[in-house]
Amino acid sequence: MNAATFERLADLIVGVGANVQEGQIVAISTAPGKEELTRALAGAAYRAGAKFVDPWYFDYSVKRERLLHGKPDELGFVPDWYSHRLCELSRLRCARISLTGATDPELFAGIEPELAGRDQLPWLKEGGQVVNDRTTNWCGFPCPTPEWARLVHPDLPADEAHERLWEQILHVLRLDTEDPRAAWERRVEELVNSATTLTERRFDAIRLRGEGTDLTVGLFRGSRWLAAQFETVDGIVHMPNLPTEEVFTTPDPERTEGHVTSTKPLFLGGSIVSGLRVEFAGGRVTKIDADENAEVLRAYAARDDGASRLGELALVDGKGRIGPLDTVFYDTLLDENAASHIALGSAYTFAVEGDDVERANRSGIHVDFMIGSPAMEVDGMTPDGEAVPVLRGGVWQV
Amino acid sequence: MNAATFERLADLIVGVGANVQEGQIVAISTAPGKEELTRALAGAAYRAGAKFVDPWYFDYSVKRERLLHGKPDELGFVPDWYSHRLCELSRLRCARISLTGATDPELFAGIEPELAGRDQLPWLKEGGQVVNDRTTNWCGFPCPTPEWARLVHPDLPADEAHERLWEQILHVLRLDTEDPRAAWERRVEELVNSATTLTERRFDAIRLRGEGTDLTVGLFRGSRWLAAQFETVDGIVHMPNLPTEEVFTTPDPERTEGHVTSTKPLFLGGSIVSGLRVEFAGGRVTKIDADENAEVLRAYAARDDGASRLGELALVDGKGRIGPLDTVFYDTLLDENAASHIALGSAYTFAVEGDDVERANRSGIHVDFMIGSPAMEVDGMTPDGEAVPVLRGGVWQV
Repeated sequence: MNAATFERLADLIVGVGANVQEGQIVAISTAPGKEELTRALAGAAYRAGAKFVDPWYFDYSVKRERLLHGKPDELGFVPDWYSHRLCELSRLRCARISLTGATDPELFAGIEPELAGRDQLPWLKEGGQVVNDRTTNWCGFPCPTPEWARLVHPDLPADEAHERLWEQILHVLRLDTEDPRAAWERRVEELVNSATTLTERRFDAIRLRGEGTDLTVGLFRGSRWLAAQFETVDGIVHMPNLPTEEVFTTPDPERTEGHVTSTKPLFLGGSIVSGLRVEFAGGRVTKIDADENAEVLRAYAARDDGASRLGELALVDGKGRIGPLDTVFYDTLLDENAASHIALGSAYTFAVEGDDVERANRSGIHVDFMIGSPAMEVDGMTPDGEAVPVLRGGVWQV
Repeated sequence: MNAATFERLADLIVGVGANVQEGQIVAISTAPGKEELTRALAGAAYRAGAKFVDPWYFDYSVKRERLLHGKPDELGFVPDWYSHRLCELSRLRCARISLTGATDPELFAGIEPELAGRDQLPWLKEGGQVVNDRTTNWCGFPCPTPEWARLVHPDLPADEAHERLWEQILHVLRLDTEDPRAAWERRVEELVNSATTLTERRFDAIRLRGEGTDLTVGLFRGSRWLAAQFETVDGIVHMPNLPTEEVFTTPDPERTEGHVTSTKPLFLGGSIVSGLRVEFAGGRVTKIDADENAEVLRAYAARDDGASRLGELALVDGKGRIGPLDTVFYDTLLDENAASHIALGSAYTFAVEGDDVERANRSGIHVDFMIGSPAMEVDGMTPDGEAVPVLRGGVWQV
């Protein structure tokens, strides 16, 4: 990558993604190995009028030392100042930018997944509340690293793998178009239209059927479908994820029934959970199995009362740029936008209208996992029990 | 450097330097480019029983973006959570480790030194108070990087420069001895003996004479000379600097008279202040000149009322390991231990006994600069005005 590309990417994230405002403090969640892009973001943010840019480099290799040599009983400990910073970012109406991407899975090789699951850093339990308070304009987006590229493209030489991953990321970010801002405006319009239509149908539940999956997710009467853009309480429109290809809503956490099989591996806290199978009854997870590292997700799901119930249901059509790449990225931000998915844990309360908002799921976790595929059949269930086709072969039917 | 050397160094810093205790939180101030040693320190700290290790990677290149593109009027701004973290580290009796070393001076090329001086991060104004509260056991030590090595050894090829700097650092840290802990115990004993002798003499002032320097620094009746080891309020003995070769005290901030010429360049906030000349009258700086970047120090000295008065006087004998290398390291931690020095700004209150402690200098800055050389003549002035030789040719006379 050359400096000009970094600058173009940084301008998209700062200007269109987080939509940084004059005088704002901008927090950047990043990691060693992502310095160059972090600096480009800082430059773009200051040029956009930021008052201060505060990068937080989270070092997964230091986390590894903790998991290897720290006291097992202390692995859930988080210093007060981590939370304080996030709460202040919220109180002061700051902008937040996160660089995502998988870490080297070898880092946690040999560490018991149950132990790894106890330490959820850099995730902070206050994160869900800050999102729901809509006090910060934020954007998460993927930043390639050589380690991540090796994981995604293990058959390519290291250099080519890195280059290929960058190419893919620039493509899905629509930075290979002449005017990425305009390209995103067009796609946002499509997504928002789909979301509006779904909201207007007021389905009582959504049923998802596919290979190894038959799940019915109950909706609130007030469940709203949203997409692409959030708006802060101060009216700052921003895109919390770039890229984004999903429409999503907040389901009733007490009415999930059935079973799912994940269609993509889940990269969680440094471990890969593959071949995941989850069963639900009465809204609650009753069983978690996996070919690998089921214990990691089990530890997350046991974190608190809401951690074993759904906080999100998202549908992805076939017009996005991620699905066609047919690549497992091991990064939820990308993989969740390739296929329909559900999330355990905290819900977006602003996706619920009326009194039902009190019943939206609450939790210190939010873990998305992908259950969709082009072959998946999605139906909307009316209050009368009629099944209305919603997605067939990745094409909207409503 | 191989992993074994990193581990040996980390064990020295964690065990002898900071003296990390079972159950402590350990904060590490570090920077991108120092990941490997940071991780070794984290491992050593967890093995020593640390509850949590919190590395803070400060990115000088992000600071550069701030200086280039940020609002000049906001350059003094520091987010509340930076201070909150430090105050919590103090309140919770944590251990603190800092990796020092100069950054690439090219980073700040083209930036007006006066602007650069407004942004004092990563230095925090609460730092002096936390040291004086003696709540944290802490250790600063130098960590070589390729950029720093290029600055110190510009005539060597990059690889050799890096290797040479590492060699020197390991030498001055006494890691090239069979038992570094024992070597430090011996040197600490010598330093503490010199300090005790100086305290017992109860000089009224110290006069330093050398090339371009004739300075008289008034002492309190209660000024104590200290060296090498600090002790926290909880009785944890630690070595705030490794290496350390100085004996130091807190002077009377109202009785400094004369002028000094620095004998080593000062690396301050990313700029090199060279050929520094400072005049004092009535305890206060009356003039700051330099061949380069005088404005940077002027901005620091204008920071608050105590910033233009002395907070420290330190004497260095000829038996240390740093002076004989005859190398300018551009890192105060090393350079200050090669030569006698003074510091503008906050004083160590625990180096004053009795009521005089209230008169010790207070400031949000602490900037050391080197005025000593082997040729420097240091005299102790008795209350009667008699001059007693203290250091001649680097050898103690008392």
